[in-house]
Amino acid sequence: MKIRILVTGGTFDKQYDELSGRLFFRDTHVPQMLQRGRCRLALAVETVMMVDSLELDDAGRAAIVARCLASAETSIVVTHGTDTMVETARALAAAALRDRTIVLTGAMIPYAFGSSDGLFNLGSALSFAQVLPPGVYIAMNGQYFPWDRVRKNRDTGTFECTA
Amino acid sequence: MKIRILVTGGTFDKQYDELSGRLFFRDTHVPQMLQRGRCRLALAVETVMMVDSLELDDAGRAAIVARCLASAETSIVVTHGTDTMVETARALAAAALRDRTIVLTGAMIPYAFGSSDGLFNLGSALSFAQVLPPGVYIAMNGQYFPWDRVRKNRDTGTFECTA
Amino acid sequence: MKIRILVTGGTFDKQYDELSGRLFFRDTHVPQMLQRGRCRLALAVETVMMVDSLELDDAGRAAIVARCLASAETSIVVTHGTDTMVETARALAAAALRDRTIVLTGAMIPYAFGSSDGLFNLGSALSFAQVLPPGVYIAMNGQYFPWDRVRKNRDTGTFECTA
Amino acid sequence: MKIRILVTGGTFDKQYDELSGRLFFRDTHVPQMLQRGRCRLALAVETVMMVDSLELDDAGRAAIVARCLASAETSIVVTHGTDTMVETARALAAAALRDRTIVLTGAMIPYAFGSSDGLFNLGSALSFAQVLPPGVYIAMNGQYFPWDRVRKNRDTGTFECTA
Repeated sequence: MKIRILVTGGTFDKQYDELSGRLFFRDTHVPQMLQRGRCRLALAVETVMMVDSLELDDAGRAAIVARCLASAETSIVVTHGTDTMVETARALAAAALRDRTIVLTGAMIPYAFGSSDGLFNLGSALSFAQVLPPGVYIAMNGQYFPWDRVRKNRDTGTFECTA
Repeated sequence: MKIRILVTGGTFDKQYDELSGRLFFRDTHVPQMLQRGRCRLALAVETVMMVDSLELDDAGRAAIVARCLASAETSIVVTHGTDTMVETARALAAAALRDRTIVLTGAMIPYAFGSSDGLFNLGSALSFAQVLPPGVYIAMNGQYFPWDRVRKNRDTGTFECTA
Repeated sequence: MKIRILVTGGTFDKQYDELSGRLFFRDTHVPQMLQRGRCRLALAVETVMMVDSLELDDAGRAAIVARCLASAETSIVVTHGTDTMVETARALAAAALRDRTIVLTGAMIPYAFGSSDGLFNLGSALSFAQVLPPGVYIAMNGQYFPWDRVRKNRDTGTFECTA
Repeated sequence: MKIRILVTGGTFDKQYDELSGRLFFRDTHVPQMLQRGRCRLALAVETVMMVDSLELDDAGRAAIVARCLASAETSIVVTHGTDTMVETARALAAAALRDRTIVLTGAMIPYAFGSSDGLFNLGSALSFAQVLPPGVYIAMNGQYFPWDRVRKNRDTGTFECTA
């Protein structure tokens, strides 16, 4: 089974610009994360965009949906900012992606900062993508949530079941 | 669903003794790894032993089997050294653990060393433990393997399907 | 010889707030940096303020000068943001701090981010503070600069001799 | 002023071999440490040997002395295992290295392990090498010690003044 990873940015991939003191995006860290995880899955890694998910609009979501539709692989992991991950999951569920297992994941701390949850989440999302039935899911905090039964608790920074 | 994590040591939990310059075991790093992963699963973490899996004998394996049998939780993750992980998986499969999903995982680099694959593997193992049907599995390299179709390739340090 | 460390904030001590996605200050990391460095110097660590040095005004500089004047120790290290480190060095030189060796240092990357230059700079500043004659200096990039012969090159993020 | 760094191995440069589970030497980490420290000193980095200092014999010490004698730079930092650092300092002092400032340093934790004191020590040693008068010194724990007034306390892993 081959899995496609669609990179869209988010905290996961933020970096610190030491000249300006600001956070920014450059290249995704997903390949080096896969290397650290000694991952041996057959993977296609594709960067769709590199944005803070608070800046993601309908056109951006349509682009992510389009890449999922175009994917030859039926197992897909989408790396995404946590702030609007639920909205993108909803947009994906609204599209006709019948036979695809799509798992969105992200991080609360940038991978580049050393103390990130990103590696844990990526291992988790790739695993769920291999075994969950077709559908759209969020994998965060070691758990998976169907797209229509999850919200981000902004006070704790964790995802919760709404059902 | 509650998951039990049985800690048995392995590279995962090795530390560096700066006075002797040797690797050794003290406490498991699993709780701080779960914290880094912002894991919100209901978990029981139990240290069975802290050994290099090359030193694990039949009595040690029997102890791990006994702890799995005694577990009230039917989803179990066992952290284990990679060198004899397949042997312990076989011992677990030989026991009558019918309704349990048992996932063994480990690491090639100690978590304490910073560049470890352990966090990725733990996220992966906890995810597989939630969704795979009852049985005994190894989760390494982003993949899962049924206990009777896997071997460790000692030249590459990765796990491979034997079927 | 006892050395006083005056903490004023700067990139050195910035942290990432995972809920807001912003950088902020809480406690200084200097004690844990000293512990990592196995530092055995007799030290007094005092937090004067925790600010981005771009926000440091004349009143703030006066406070730093006052703490240097009040210091019983004649060897002083000041941790400081790099953007206005030269200005604070000038303010310190303008005060009558005759018998004191004052060394300002900072970092381009927050210590908390793992890939910081801060530990190198702190080791350097503490060493220069022990052996340089009285005066005001900046220790960055492995080098030391008298306060009146240094500028920060904002394009490279490094300090340069102006003489 | 140009400084020569002579690399001899020691804990500083040890790495973990994930296939054998053993510590070993490959290339020195000094260049990447200098890069992390944003070091802008004029430096010549030379690997003399890569050994555990417990395995260093008279011939090995003679080789280090010879490299110091051959150095065009009069400021020299020697990275060295801590176990016999004092012995090598003595051998250097016994040689006719009159106008040279030689500073030995090392680490208790390998740089590659993430939590190392090495970066602190390297920043410290390079700083002392710039300002101390000619002689042979050990720079550890934020302090410097003349070669004939220092011992390693093997119980604490720290260096102490013997005078």
